Amino acid sequence: MQQSPVASASARNNSQIHLATARDLVAVARPIARRYFRQRLAVERKADASPVTVADRGIEAELRAILTARHPEHAIFGEEQGAERLGARFTWVIDPIDGTKSFVTGMPLFGTLIALLDDGRPQLGLIDMPILDELWVGQAGQSTSLNGQPCRASDCSDPAKATLYATSPDMFTGTDLAAFERLSGQIGLRRFGGDCYAYALLAAGHIDLVVEVGLQPYDYLPLVPVIEGAGGVVTDWNGQSLGLGADGRVVAAATPALHRWALETLLG
Amino acid sequence: MQQSPVASASARNNSQIHLATARDLVAVARPIARRYFRQRLAVERKADASPVTVADRGIEAELRAILTARHPEHAIFGEEQGAERLGARFTWVIDPIDGTKSFVTGMPLFGTLIALLDDGRPQLGLIDMPILDELWVGQAGQSTSLNGQPCRASDCSDPAKATLYATSPDMFTGTDLAAFERLSGQIGLRRFGGDCYAYALLAAGHIDLVVEVGLQPYDYLPLVPVIEGAGGVVTDWNGQSLGLGADGRVVAAATPALHRWALETLLG
Repeated sequence: MQQSPVASASARNNSQIHLATARDLVAVARPIARRYFRQRLAVERKADASPVTVADRGIEAELRAILTARHPEHAIFGEEQGAERLGARFTWVIDPIDGTKSFVTGMPLFGTLIALLDDGRPQLGLIDMPILDELWVGQAGQSTSLNGQPCRASDCSDPAKATLYATSPDMFTGTDLAAFERLSGQIGLRRFGGDCYAYALLAAGHIDLVVEVGLQPYDYLPLVPVIEGAGGVVTDWNGQSLGLGADGRVVAAATPALHRWALETLLG
Repeated sequence: MQQSPVASASARNNSQIHLATARDLVAVARPIARRYFRQRLAVERKADASPVTVADRGIEAELRAILTARHPEHAIFGEEQGAERLGARFTWVIDPIDGTKSFVTGMPLFGTLIALLDDGRPQLGLIDMPILDELWVGQAGQSTSLNGQPCRASDCSDPAKATLYATSPDMFTGTDLAAFERLSGQIGLRRFGGDCYAYALLAAGHIDLVVEVGLQPYDYLPLVPVIEGAGGVVTDWNGQSLGLGADGRVVAAATPALHRWALETLLG
């Protein structure tokens, strides 16, 4: 269906307003993350045993307050404080500190992740690295940028020349582990560590493949526009688009050919 | 044996000159590393299959030229261009880019490592992180500094509360792998990635234990003064001091108690 000129102008206007909000969110989050980094913080364990600190909670509370004031009709889905107004057309997805295990061990590879979903599909995604001073912005239908400069995934389609990252081998068990080992055994170089930063490096053309499991919607939804806007491909392990209801198994690849090979190899 | 006042003043003077040289080396290395980082570089494989680039070789050549000009009587042992004048009292040990696999995948966790050995014992060690703008300096008998500020390892002696890093699980095989799994199964948190940076984080009190194998003298000798000057302990897996002839299996711990536990657990 073709949009009327008025509807189309309104969509453009909306998308500029949303981008401005998203940029403000990471600009507010960054100094909070920097202030708490490498301070002695109490580390609590959540129900799923993942760590959380006052920094995670403090950032998310600030960002929710901004969103509620500016876009009171939008839904919010955050890692620490859950969902509100789900069912609205627009949903903001927030991971205040992705890579809390890096954060609490003094490792600067944690990021703040923001996504905006339009009817459940990620339209806007930001990966901000507070210590590294790097911000990736992805928008559906536009080129991804790193600190304002366009960036592009590599043209690697040969597994034997590809670099693979996963956050940790400890995320895989059972048949997922077997599939990961089968795939990574055919790869040029495999490395561990990185959380969201591995996907950001893929969008900037430095690595070629990320294969992970156990991710939550706030971990993977912000990555989608960043990777797609850089020419990469990201889906679940069955090749399905990532939405709120995906199973948390993620394959991101620099090229369609490498992505296809990864899916086939994982399925065995 | 007590040194005469004259010998002691001369030793102090020597050690200040050596520290100034070491600082100059990392100051020269840093902009070269930054210039090559994330550029498209040809990656060659060395005899041991580890990667090397023009950046590794360019940095080492520059540093060797400085050392040969200033200290023509000192030995040099570098990762890329080998040994010269071995047998001299003082030996400079250079790893121009520790973490070349990070370097070539756009990951800023690589460092330049410098050590000065006096009769084979590490007296001075520097860990410089060119992208992160962090420099650790360790000197025998003095407090380790991070960017000029004293830093200190943690007081953690309880494995269940400790954080363990290793660069990759792929470095371990056979009985070493079994020992590593036995140890890391009793640890609060284990993480992968980091190369030299894991040891630097230990010296700054953020993590508590690093256990690795397959390291070369230029990988581990620079770490020794940094860790010891921060109150930590670093040896081989048998508890022996690390010298040029060690077998490359390294245990670094924040406290003597945690180090003792790690040795006992590794030996099984």
